[in-house]
Amino acid sequence: MIAKTPKPPYYAVIFTSLRSDQAENYLETALEMERLAALQKGYLGHETAREDTGITVSYWQDLESIKNWKNQSDHLIAQKMGREAWYTAYKTRICLVERDYGFEL
Amino acid sequence: MIAKTPKPPYYAVIFTSLRSDQAENYLETALEMERLAALQKGYLGHETAREDTGITVSYWQDLESIKNWKNQSDHLIAQKMGREAWYTAYKTRICLVERDYGFEL
Repeated sequence: MIAKTPKPPYYAVIFTSLRSDQAENYLETALEMERLAALQKGYLGHETAREDTGITVSYWQDLESIKNWKNQSDHLIAQKMGREAWYTAYKTRICLVERDYGFEL
Repeated sequence: MIAKTPKPPYYAVIFTSLRSDQAENYLETALEMERLAALQKGYLGHETAREDTGITVSYWQDLESIKNWKNQSDHLIAQKMGREAWYTAYKTRICLVERDYGFEL
Protein backbone atom coordinates (compact mmCIF):
# COMPACT_ATOMS: atom_id res chain seq x y z
CA MET A 1 0.00 0.00 0.00
CA ILE A 2 0.99 3.61 -0.55
CA ALA A 3 0.71 5.65 2.66
CA LYS A 4 -1.93 8.41 2.62
CA THR A 5 0.20 11.22 3.96
CA PRO A 6 -0.87 14.85 4.42
CA LYS A 7 0.45 17.81 2.44
CA PRO A 8 4.21 18.36 3.12
CA PRO A 9 6.16 19.27 5.12
CA TYR A 10 6.27 16.14 7.26
CA TYR A 11 9.00 13.66 8.16
CA ALA A 12 10.06 10.28 6.76
CA VAL A 13 12.26 7.67 8.44
CA ILE A 14 13.87 5.41 5.86
CA PHE A 15 15.02 2.15 7.45
CA THR A 16 17.05 -0.03 5.07
CA SER A 17 18.24 -3.41 6.33
CA LEU A 18 19.94 -6.67 5.45
CA ARG A 19 18.68 -9.75 7.31
CA SER A 20 20.78 -12.43 8.94
CA ASP A 21 19.66 -16.08 8.79
CA GLN A 22 18.26 -15.83 12.34
CA ALA A 23 14.49 -15.71 12.05
CA GLU A 24 13.33 -16.47 15.61
CA ASN A 25 10.67 -13.98 16.74
CA TYR A 26 11.50 -11.71 13.82
CA LEU A 27 8.19 -11.70 11.97
CA GLU A 28 5.98 -11.48 15.05
CA THR A 29 8.10 -8.64 16.42
CA ALA A 30 8.09 -6.77 13.09
CA LEU A 31 4.29 -6.97 12.96
CA GLU A 32 3.98 -5.94 16.60
CA MET A 33 6.26 -2.93 15.96
CA GLU A 34 4.08 -1.91 13.00
CA ARG A 35 1.01 -2.14 15.23
CA LEU A 36 2.63 -0.13 18.04
CA ALA A 37 4.11 2.51 15.73
CA ALA A 38 0.65 3.18 14.32
CA LEU A 39 -0.58 3.99 17.85
CA GLN A 40 2.09 6.63 18.47
CA LYS A 41 1.31 10.34 18.48
CA GLY A 42 2.39 11.90 15.20
CA TYR A 43 2.40 8.66 13.17
CA LEU A 44 1.20 9.30 9.60
CA GLY A 45 1.64 5.92 7.89
CA HIS A 46 4.25 3.53 6.59
CA GLU A 47 5.33 1.49 3.57
CA THR A 48 7.43 -1.65 3.51
CA ALA A 49 8.97 -4.09 1.02
CA ARG A 50 11.72 -6.69 1.22
CA GLU A 51 13.70 -8.60 -1.39
CA ASP A 52 17.42 -9.03 -0.57
CA THR A 53 17.27 -5.56 0.90
CA GLY A 54 14.40 -4.53 3.15
CA ILE A 55 13.08 -0.97 3.06
CA THR A 56 10.55 0.36 5.55
CA VAL A 57 9.58 4.01 5.37
CA SER A 58 7.51 5.44 8.20
CA TYR A 59 6.01 8.93 8.07
CA TRP A 60 5.73 11.27 11.02
CA GLN A 61 4.39 14.70 11.87
CA ASP A 62 7.57 16.02 13.46
CA LEU A 63 10.97 15.11 14.92
CA GLU A 64 9.58 14.80 18.42
CA SER A 65 7.23 11.98 17.34
CA ILE A 66 10.18 10.16 15.75
CA LYS A 67 12.27 10.56 18.90
CA ASN A 68 9.44 9.31 21.13
CA TRP A 69 8.97 6.20 18.99
CA LYS A 70 12.73 5.58 18.89
CA ASN A 71 12.75 5.56 22.71
CA GLN A 72 9.50 3.61 23.24
CA SER A 73 10.33 0.68 25.54
CA ASP A 74 9.14 -2.26 23.40
CA HIS A 75 10.79 -0.66 20.40
CA LEU A 76 14.10 -0.32 22.27
CA ILE A 77 14.04 -4.08 22.98
CA ALA A 78 13.26 -4.80 19.31
CA GLN A 79 16.15 -2.54 18.20
CA LYS A 80 18.52 -4.46 20.48
CA MET A 81 17.30 -7.79 19.06
CA GLY A 82 17.76 -6.35 15.59
CA ARG A 83 21.43 -5.63 16.22
CA GLU A 84 22.06 -8.88 18.12
CA ALA A 85 20.18 -11.31 15.88
CA TRP A 86 18.02 -10.30 12.93
CA TYR A 87 20.16 -7.90 10.90
CA THR A 88 23.69 -7.97 9.55
CA ALA A 89 23.43 -4.27 8.70
CA TYR A 90 20.94 -1.43 8.70
CA LYS A 91 20.79 2.28 8.09
CA THR A 92 18.23 4.76 9.38
CA ARG A 93 17.78 8.08 7.63
CA ILE A 94 15.69 10.91 9.12
CA CYS A 95 14.29 13.09 6.35
CA LEU A 96 12.15 16.19 5.92
CA VAL A 97 9.66 15.55 3.10
CA GLU A 98 9.60 18.85 1.25
CA ARG A 99 7.40 17.96 -1.72
CA ASP A 100 5.39 15.04 -3.02
CA TYR A 101 3.29 14.19 -6.06
CA GLY A 102 1.65 11.07 -7.39
CA PHE A 103 -0.59 9.28 -9.78
CA GLU A 104 -3.49 6.91 -9.28
CA LEU A 105 -5.70 5.15 -11.84
CA MET B 1 22.38 -3.44 -0.74
CA ILE B 2 22.46 -0.42 1.54
CA ALA B 3 23.57 2.72 -0.32
CA LYS B 4 26.91 4.20 0.82
CA THR B 5 25.81 7.80 1.15
CA PRO B 6 27.93 10.72 2.40
CA LYS B 7 27.41 12.60 5.64
CA PRO B 8 24.04 14.49 5.60
CA PRO B 9 22.60 16.78 4.43
CA TYR B 10 21.75 15.23 1.07
CA TYR B 11 18.49 14.43 -0.68
CA ALA B 12 16.36 11.28 -0.99
CA VAL B 13 13.63 10.59 -3.53
CA ILE B 14 11.22 7.94 -2.22
CA PHE B 15 9.28 6.35 -5.09
CA THR B 16 6.51 4.03 -3.88
CA SER B 17 4.48 2.18 -6.50
CA LEU B 18 1.83 -0.45 -7.16
CA ARG B 19 2.25 -2.47 -10.36
CA SER B 20 -0.42 -3.28 -12.92
CA ASP B 21 -0.44 -6.71 -14.60
CA GLN B 22 1.23 -5.23 -17.70
CA ALA B 23 4.84 -6.38 -17.68
CA GLU B 24 5.98 -5.66 -21.26
CA ASN B 25 9.34 -3.84 -21.26
CA TYR B 26 9.00 -3.12 -17.54
CA LEU B 27 12.02 -4.98 -16.18
CA GLU B 28 14.43 -3.97 -18.95
CA THR B 29 13.35 -0.35 -18.61
CA ALA B 30 13.66 -0.39 -14.81
CA LEU B 31 17.21 -1.75 -15.09
CA GLU B 32 18.10 0.76 -17.80
CA MET B 33 16.77 3.62 -15.64
CA GLU B 34 18.92 2.39 -12.72
CA ARG B 35 21.94 2.36 -15.03
CA LEU B 36 21.22 5.85 -16.41
CA ALA B 37 20.41 7.37 -13.01
CA ALA B 38 23.80 6.22 -11.73
CA LEU B 39 25.48 8.22 -14.53
CA GLN B 40 23.77 11.49 -13.61
CA LYS B 41 25.61 14.33 -11.92
CA GLY B 42 24.79 14.38 -8.20
CA TYR B 43 23.68 10.73 -7.97
CA LEU B 44 24.72 9.20 -4.62
CA GLY B 45 23.17 5.72 -4.70
CA HIS B 46 19.88 3.89 -4.51
CA GLU B 47 18.03 1.09 -2.74
CA THR B 48 15.08 -0.92 -4.04
CA ALA B 49 12.69 -3.67 -2.91
CA ARG B 50 9.34 -4.92 -4.11
CA GLU B 51 6.67 -7.16 -2.59
CA ASP B 52 3.07 -6.02 -3.22
CA THR B 53 4.34 -2.50 -2.86
CA GLY B 54 7.56 -1.40 -4.56
CA ILE B 55 9.87 1.10 -2.88
CA THR B 56 12.87 2.64 -4.62
CA VAL B 57 14.85 5.28 -2.80
CA SER B 58 17.46 7.21 -4.74
CA TYR B 59 19.92 9.58 -3.09
CA TRP B 60 21.11 12.86 -4.58
CA GLN B 61 23.48 15.69 -3.80
CA ASP B 62 20.96 18.48 -4.30
CA LEU B 63 17.56 19.44 -5.74
CA GLU B 64 19.07 20.44 -9.08
CA SER B 65 20.38 16.89 -9.66
CA ILE B 66 16.92 15.51 -8.89
CA LYS B 67 15.29 17.97 -11.31
CA ASN B 68 17.78 17.15 -14.07
CA TRP B 69 17.13 13.42 -13.71
CA LYS B 70 13.35 13.96 -13.64
CA ASN B 71 13.64 15.79 -16.98
CA GLN B 72 16.19 13.46 -18.63
CA SER B 73 14.72 12.40 -21.98
CA ASP B 74 14.81 8.58 -21.61
CA HIS B 75 13.48 8.96 -18.09
CA LEU B 76 10.57 11.11 -19.32
CA ILE B 77 9.57 8.34 -21.73
CA ALA B 78 9.81 5.75 -18.93
CA GLN B 79 7.65 7.95 -16.66
CA LYS B 80 5.00 8.16 -19.38
CA MET B 81 5.06 4.36 -19.85
CA GLY B 82 4.77 4.02 -16.08
CA ARG B 83 1.55 6.01 -15.98
CA GLU B 84 0.12 4.41 -19.14
CA ALA B 85 1.02 0.77 -18.51
CA TRP B 86 3.13 -0.43 -15.59
CA TYR B 87 1.68 1.23 -12.51
CA THR B 88 -1.81 1.57 -11.08
CA ALA B 89 -0.53 4.14 -8.59
CA TYR B 90 2.67 5.76 -7.44
CA LYS B 91 3.88 8.47 -5.13
CA THR B 92 7.15 10.39 -5.28
CA ARG B 93 8.45 12.18 -2.20
CA ILE B 94 11.38 14.60 -2.32
CA CYS B 95 13.15 14.68 1.05
CA LEU B 96 16.07 16.38 2.72
CA VAL B 97 18.03 13.78 4.71
CA GLU B 98 18.93 15.61 7.90
CA ARG B 99 20.52 12.79 9.90
CA ASP B 100 21.48 9.16 9.49
CA TYR B 101 22.98 6.37 11.57
CA GLY B 102 23.49 2.69 11.13
CA PHE B 103 24.93 -0.60 12.20
CA GLU B 104 27.03 -3.18 10.39
CA LEU B 105 28.42 -6.51 11.61
